[in-house]
Amino acid sequence: MSTVSAYAAPSASEPLTKTTITRRDVGPHDVAFDIHFAGICHSDIHTVRGEWGGVQYPLVPGHEIAGIVTEVGSEVSRYKVGDRVGVGCFVDSCRECEFCLAGEEQYCNNPGMVGTYNGVGRDGQPTQGGYSGAIVVDENYVLSIPDSIPLDKAAPLLCAGITTYSPLRHWNAGPGTNVAVIGLGGLGHLAVKIAAAMGAQVTVLSQSLKKMEDGLRLGASEYYATSDPDTFKKLSGSFDLIINTVSANLDMGDYLGLLKLDGTLVELGMPEKPMEVPAGALIFGRRRLSGSLIGGIAETQEMLNFCADHDVTPEIEVIEPDYINDAYERVLASDVRYRFVINTESLR
Amino acid sequence: MSTVSAYAAPSASEPLTKTTITRRDVGPHDVAFDIHFAGICHSDIHTVRGEWGGVQYPLVPGHEIAGIVTEVGSEVSRYKVGDRVGVGCFVDSCRECEFCLAGEEQYCNNPGMVGTYNGVGRDGQPTQGGYSGAIVVDENYVLSIPDSIPLDKAAPLLCAGITTYSPLRHWNAGPGTNVAVIGLGGLGHLAVKIAAAMGAQVTVLSQSLKKMEDGLRLGASEYYATSDPDTFKKLSGSFDLIINTVSANLDMGDYLGLLKLDGTLVELGMPEKPMEVPAGALIFGRRRLSGSLIGGIAETQEMLNFCADHDVTPEIEVIEPDYINDAYERVLASDVRYRFVINTESLR
Repeated sequence: MSTVSAYAAPSASEPLTKTTITRRDVGPHDVAFDIHFAGICHSDIHTVRGEWGGVQYPLVPGHEIAGIVTEVGSEVSRYKVGDRVGVGCFVDSCRECEFCLAGEEQYCNNPGMVGTYNGVGRDGQPTQGGYSGAIVVDENYVLSIPDSIPLDKAAPLLCAGITTYSPLRHWNAGPGTNVAVIGLGGLGHLAVKIAAAMGAQVTVLSQSLKKMEDGLRLGASEYYATSDPDTFKKLSGSFDLIINTVSANLDMGDYLGLLKLDGTLVELGMPEKPMEVPAGALIFGRRRLSGSLIGGIAETQEMLNFCADHDVTPEIEVIEPDYINDAYERVLASDVRYRFVINTESLR
Repeated sequence: MSTVSAYAAPSASEPLTKTTITRRDVGPHDVAFDIHFAGICHSDIHTVRGEWGGVQYPLVPGHEIAGIVTEVGSEVSRYKVGDRVGVGCFVDSCRECEFCLAGEEQYCNNPGMVGTYNGVGRDGQPTQGGYSGAIVVDENYVLSIPDSIPLDKAAPLLCAGITTYSPLRHWNAGPGTNVAVIGLGGLGHLAVKIAAAMGAQVTVLSQSLKKMEDGLRLGASEYYATSDPDTFKKLSGSFDLIINTVSANLDMGDYLGLLKLDGTLVELGMPEKPMEVPAGALIFGRRRLSGSLIGGIAETQEMLNFCADHDVTPEIEVIEPDYINDAYERVLASDVRYRFVINTESLR
């Protein structure tokens, strides 16, 4: 075992503080790497504060991790010391169920993927995330970061990037398709960039027109305020695909009405209450409501390569670890354009 | 104009009574036919009682109509006197919008399909349905009933049949797919028969096991009671497609949990209140919730031919027109196996 500095939440109600954690010895299939940057995801905050239940404290969050390999196990073939690598939302899965075998490890049900933090590894130890100086992960769950993507900008791709790329790819966003993105935050701004890079026509649906200039710069061709009821009349029946990055409970009837025949609205966030869906909004127009959870390992690598090829990277604000608690407040206030990334140099 | 006997609702609160209505003169593109049988659909009752609003009384319901051609217009090429024909839920549409041009006239939005009853025809007159002795309909909205299907059994296919056939076809029910049907009523019993004829493995999910013998006889290989909580544990992640024929508000989280990865639950009925859908039930497993509305004219003809080829017909109870009001009460009490069909001989 080795020790490394980290920022951990001691409980649901206390701020994160600097501490020391252990990382397991490098096994034959493991990759150890120094963490250079870790993104702050809204779900870090939900988990830390116990809003999704079942937390083992102290907890080190962080599942948008980018760094450089320092050691590899004797059986590791994919990576070598010095490689630029990343880890996303999970660090293991059963590798045997139909989902794992299909490369959709995120849906593993035997009993489920092992979260990068707040999970339990094969060694029976709790997993701890990326707000730290180093980590040890099985090579099958490590991603290769293309040279053209700076490590700080790579970090948010490991969760926000794949979470938006996967449904856009799955529901065939591309030339000739009309895609709407609800919300221009951490997820939304990447959804816009990726959908535009795929060749789709992209519209942002945001509460106000405050970020309109950004939206158009990022690749959207249209930008509408959802606070204006005319938006829903004007855009009725317009979209093949709507990506909803907003976790608040929206009027689903209104939004489903924006879909074309056979169009799909995909939920990425988890509103606190069940969504209220009028059946008629689905029946008239054979519209679909679905959801999507991050992506598998192979698809995450595909996404990283796609982003490198199409020069897609997130807009980030790099912070020092002692700013994490302030950053959390700003995330909750939607006061970030568009993702905080922690420089973990002081934790190594 | 010609006159013909019919059963009409004078208002939302009065029973249907015998009356006389007019049918338009046979235009160049029209087919006139004697109605031999008309099915009773639950939506007849919803409409008659004003539960869906906007009713013009007196109203003659009935959109599951089968009969024999008595006269055709000068330009009619598809039908001749003596042909066995049917009419379903609509008798016209704009013929110009993208949906009409795609053969999905049921989703016409310019301004919408013309209902077989409670609609307004091109002549500006209210449409009146099949609880009558004869009708005049544009040949493009008339179906040909294959010789092997008796007219009384053909009638319910025109709504219940296409309403279940269309989503089963659209979501690729067939060999190797696992299909569940929620509810074994007028729609459900046809969904079971059609899905089995398509080669799918069919499971009925019914409140109790009361109709189990019927369900298995009709083509299901499994039958479960949804009143038993073990059903939801046992069948978790089992189905590619679930067809929901029940209009009551169900626990959508429970039912969505029965779908496989990428599986779809299709709503055919319209619950009174919006469905409460937990986003997590869609996100974990990338499950889909959709809806489907009858089918287009070409697909309805395809369905009739499929039913003839596969010997699929509804289970019916033939009644005389003076029993309509009693039949309504029995439909509301789910006391029919599985569809009432009115013998309209006395109305001709």
